Amino acid sequence: MNTIIIGTIGYDTVETPFGKRERALGGSATYASVAASFFTNPGMVAIVGEDFEDKHKELLKSKNISLSGIKQVPGKTFAWGGKYEFDMNEAKTEFTDLNTLLDFDAELPDEYKNAKYVFLANTDPVLQMKVIEQLKQPELIVMDTMNFWIDTKKQELLEVIKKVHVLLLNDGEARQLFDTVNLAQAANQALALGPKFVIIKKGEHGALLFGNGSHFNAPGYPLEVIKDPTGCGDSFAGGFIGYLAKHNAVDEASLRKAIIYGSVIASFNAEDFSLDRNSKLTMDEIEKRFQEMKEIREF
Amino acid sequence: MNTIIIGTIGYDTVETPFGKRERALGGSATYASVAASFFTNPGMVAIVGEDFEDKHKELLKSKNISLSGIKQVPGKTFAWGGKYEFDMNEAKTEFTDLNTLLDFDAELPDEYKNAKYVFLANTDPVLQMKVIEQLKQPELIVMDTMNFWIDTKKQELLEVIKKVHVLLLNDGEARQLFDTVNLAQAANQALALGPKFVIIKKGEHGALLFGNGSHFNAPGYPLEVIKDPTGCGDSFAGGFIGYLAKHNAVDEASLRKAIIYGSVIASFNAEDFSLDRNSKLTMDEIEKRFQEMKEIREF
Repeated sequence: MNTIIIGTIGYDTVETPFGKRERALGGSATYASVAASFFTNPGMVAIVGEDFEDKHKELLKSKNISLSGIKQVPGKTFAWGGKYEFDMNEAKTEFTDLNTLLDFDAELPDEYKNAKYVFLANTDPVLQMKVIEQLKQPELIVMDTMNFWIDTKKQELLEVIKKVHVLLLNDGEARQLFDTVNLAQAANQALALGPKFVIIKKGEHGALLFGNGSHFNAPGYPLEVIKDPTGCGDSFAGGFIGYLAKHNAVDEASLRKAIIYGSVIASFNAEDFSLDRNSKLTMDEIEKRFQEMKEIREF
Repeated sequence: MNTIIIGTIGYDTVETPFGKRERALGGSATYASVAASFFTNPGMVAIVGEDFEDKHKELLKSKNISLSGIKQVPGKTFAWGGKYEFDMNEAKTEFTDLNTLLDFDAELPDEYKNAKYVFLANTDPVLQMKVIEQLKQPELIVMDTMNFWIDTKKQELLEVIKKVHVLLLNDGEARQLFDTVNLAQAANQALALGPKFVIIKKGEHGALLFGNGSHFNAPGYPLEVIKDPTGCGDSFAGGFIGYLAKHNAVDEASLRKAIIYGSVIASFNAEDFSLDRNSKLTMDEIEKRFQEMKEIREF
């Protein structure tokens, strides 16, 4: 397995000003794997309960995603409920039922241990470290995290950051983790820990890439309607690592292109609830919007 | 006079985490005119009191800025005090002494009435309209405003917007004026009123240009230290209109370049208090950073 994605599969109950969905397919590994599947055949590592539906397995299989790293155990699948108000940038969590996620042990199937491209979606940093320790020849490890781990396991999180190639954060997390309002300063502090690159996701404002002495600014795509932003960050990450895996490249020029592909796929994701848009998305649509991204920053 | 800039001259007392300055030269017309002076010789339209210092007149004259539209009257010059906290994006106003600004009548000297490039900095929309009515052959009128006028004179403000070519707003103002959180929607509503272009300034996140069916996304320059953001919006506008005046151009390709030059000059402005940085800025420094802006967008 060349590319693996470790994270959650969940059932999301989401309300936005455009509607409400109950128990729709979600989870970081789901969003990221579907996004990555436009470029490669990723393997998922996640845990689900007995209630995980066959039609959702079929959906993932239809995208040539490997499910052999998904453990199904007694009990219920992780479930999350959230609501987006007028400002669609942040969800208010209404409930988090960890359920079987409490038993997630991040054990990789043997055929996943040779993975070269690895995305560690937001999880307990202890589990992220456990995945890293099982990898035999990683070329590019990309990690995400969230404010909860910065608050509760900062030291463990910093140890993981030292081991990865690309640290992915949103702007609020970057400011919190490095205790500065200035994103360039936060990125430089992150780079000093070890990663070769830091990517700061800024939602509608695009994304920033910082390397050692280099900087790339990716525009946000100007969506007029954002129906549901759930999973955009993970779709971004999945598109990013999928592109790099396909081209077997880790140089900065490739990372820049990968960020734009990730942004494009994330922008489609926001156009509908759950995976409704991205499960129907075509490569032609992606390439067309990639060209638009070129045009909107031309001067 | 080919280019005129209507706004305030003031004495600013500003405190940021990096220091404090008392009664430093400021005001929208000042910042915008100094920025425009890198490309053209603008004429200022403003009012000052008896306390307006000769050394500040000399500074403006040394930049080949015409002062014949500046009225000096008995009383004191407009003064403003503000403080920036940890988040440098917005100032908390500590005092506003309008002083002689209450007597500002926006009368143009005769030689200013032929101006082709006009920047109406944030002022009472009634005065902005009065300026527009005095213009004989404007090619490009750019206007700015602020939340205070949206709250208190929205109808008059909308009438001015109908008469200008480019509406300049920050993101918060755009959302407030058009009652939507979505900037693309806000821009489209603005365009429907009459302007050919709308520019939404987003501070560290850059700026967006919306035309009829077209879109441009300008990056923010990744400054590691922002000493004082006062005047950045006006420096942006001044650089923008100055560039267009120099090239006598109002097409979209020129506007895109003008936005980048405006952003570059605004980024320098933030590097020090008052006009300390931009009064010493050179065209070589501007061109170098313009190239950097190209590089951070390459993919």
